Amino acid sequence: MDLERPLDALNNARGKRVLLELKNQKQIRGNLKSFDIHINTVLENAEEYENGELKRKLGLTFIRGDTIILISPSE
Amino acid sequence: MDLERPLDALNNARGKRVLLELKNQKQIRGNLKSFDIHINTVLENAEEYENGELKRKLGLTFIRGDTIILISPSE
Amino acid sequence: MDLERPLDALNNARGKRVLLELKNQKQIRGNLKSFDIHINTVLENAEEYENGELKRKLGLTFIRGDTIILISPSE
Amino acid sequence: MDLERPLDALNNARGKRVLLELKNQKQIRGNLKSFDIHINTVLENAEEYENGELKRKLGLTFIRGDTIILISPSE
Amino acid sequence: MDLERPLDALNNARGKRVLLELKNQKQIRGNLKSFDIHINTVLENAEEYENGELKRKLGLTFIRGDTIILISPSE
Amino acid sequence: MDLERPLDALNNARGKRVLLELKNQKQIRGNLKSFDIHINTVLENAEEYENGELKRKLGLTFIRGDTIILISPSE
Amino acid sequence: MDLERPLDALNNARGKRVLLELKNQKQIRGNLKSFDIHINTVLENAEEYENGELKRKLGLTFIRGDTIILISPSE
Repeated sequence: MDLERPLDALNNARGKRVLLELKNQKQIRGNLKSFDIHINTVLENAEEYENGELKRKLGLTFIRGDTIILISPSE
Repeated sequence: MDLERPLDALNNARGKRVLLELKNQKQIRGNLKSFDIHINTVLENAEEYENGELKRKLGLTFIRGDTIILISPSE
Repeated sequence: MDLERPLDALNNARGKRVLLELKNQKQIRGNLKSFDIHINTVLENAEEYENGELKRKLGLTFIRGDTIILISPSE
Repeated sequence: MDLERPLDALNNARGKRVLLELKNQKQIRGNLKSFDIHINTVLENAEEYENGELKRKLGLTFIRGDTIILISPSE
Repeated sequence: MDLERPLDALNNARGKRVLLELKNQKQIRGNLKSFDIHINTVLENAEEYENGELKRKLGLTFIRGDTIILISPSE
Repeated sequence: MDLERPLDALNNARGKRVLLELKNQKQIRGNLKSFDIHINTVLENAEEYENGELKRKLGLTFIRGDTIILISPSE
Repeated sequence: MDLERPLDALNNARGKRVLLELKNQKQIRGNLKSFDIHINTVLENAEEYENGELKRKLGLTFIRGDTIILISPSE
């Protein structure tokens, strides 16, 4: 376990629903389809939330890594 | 599917209408013509929106990658 | 067309009048003379606009790439 | 001791409860599972705090390194 | 002309009076003595302006490139 | 002396009490245990101050380099 | 002269009193002891100013390069 790297945790989340917290104070929930070392991320069935409210359905969405604060399994 | 990379999703969107959400709180819709690893992006028939309203027709437009939050197929 | 890169679009705009949208909420219009991979850009006969109003004539101007949001053919 | 490097201190904290102070003025507490040279960090049983109050239980969470101010053993 | 690069324009301005627009909303005018690929710049007889008013005489001044928006021949 | 480099000064401060001024307008005082070329820094017995007032005892703390403005021997 | 580089100007200022303008709207004056290509800088007998007023004597101080706007011989 001690030798795990952060991207391993993202790798285990592929295909699962995740929550992305963005620097613009919005959240995006979606199924994690892919990511790279810059944490550029693609979600399927992405939905944008603001203050807990669904704002937009985005569908398949590419999110630039430098705008992401955290990625967590969606509750 | 597990080995897909984020740029593959952008590659599949070439020629299609996409929505770009920018860090300056504006949106640009246009036909995705090209992109690179910095996510520098060129759109054709680009239109700038603010708060859901069309602000400007920009035509062929180069957008610097570091200003982009997300790219999604336009609804 | 699918293999085009974003800088090709800028290359095609050399010598033409373009609009640069900057991160400081100003616009610069001018004739695109040169650019590099950082999107550092040189314009001839550059003019600075703010809220649609001409503010300053700048002449030959070097603009640092990281301050640029988008580059579009001037309308 | 003089030849220690900052990442050694993070390495010693693996598996222990830590406090992450983020640039968005929130704190995350959790068990440090992994990190890399960008300080991308994975916490288990992560909890988000704001002004000392528990806001959300996040569970396993990936935090992008560039959003982190400091990492400290949780009191 | 088409193969010119942005730094060529700066090179041609060596020894001449230029205007630097900075990200902190100040302007610096001075004689361009040197610059590098980061656009770190040294001016001689530099003067700092704010809202068109001379604020300070700075003399020989090193300006870090990442703080520069644009460089233009001073009018 | 003329050939000294900035990290030499940090090296001489190892084990001594230092003041770190952070970009979030807080200060951290602690014993400098280690640092790297990114100025990632580890302090022992770290204490966080705001407006001259002690806010928190942090103990052993890792501070990400890009959040640091300056490092000075603590008075 | 035309082939001078910006760091040459800093090199000539070693040992002399300089003014550093920082992005946090403070100024630091001190004797330039060393600097590197990131413009990380060490000053001796550093003093912090805000709005022209001396705020703190900092002594020997390391300043991270990315926080610096300009470096000028102190008047």
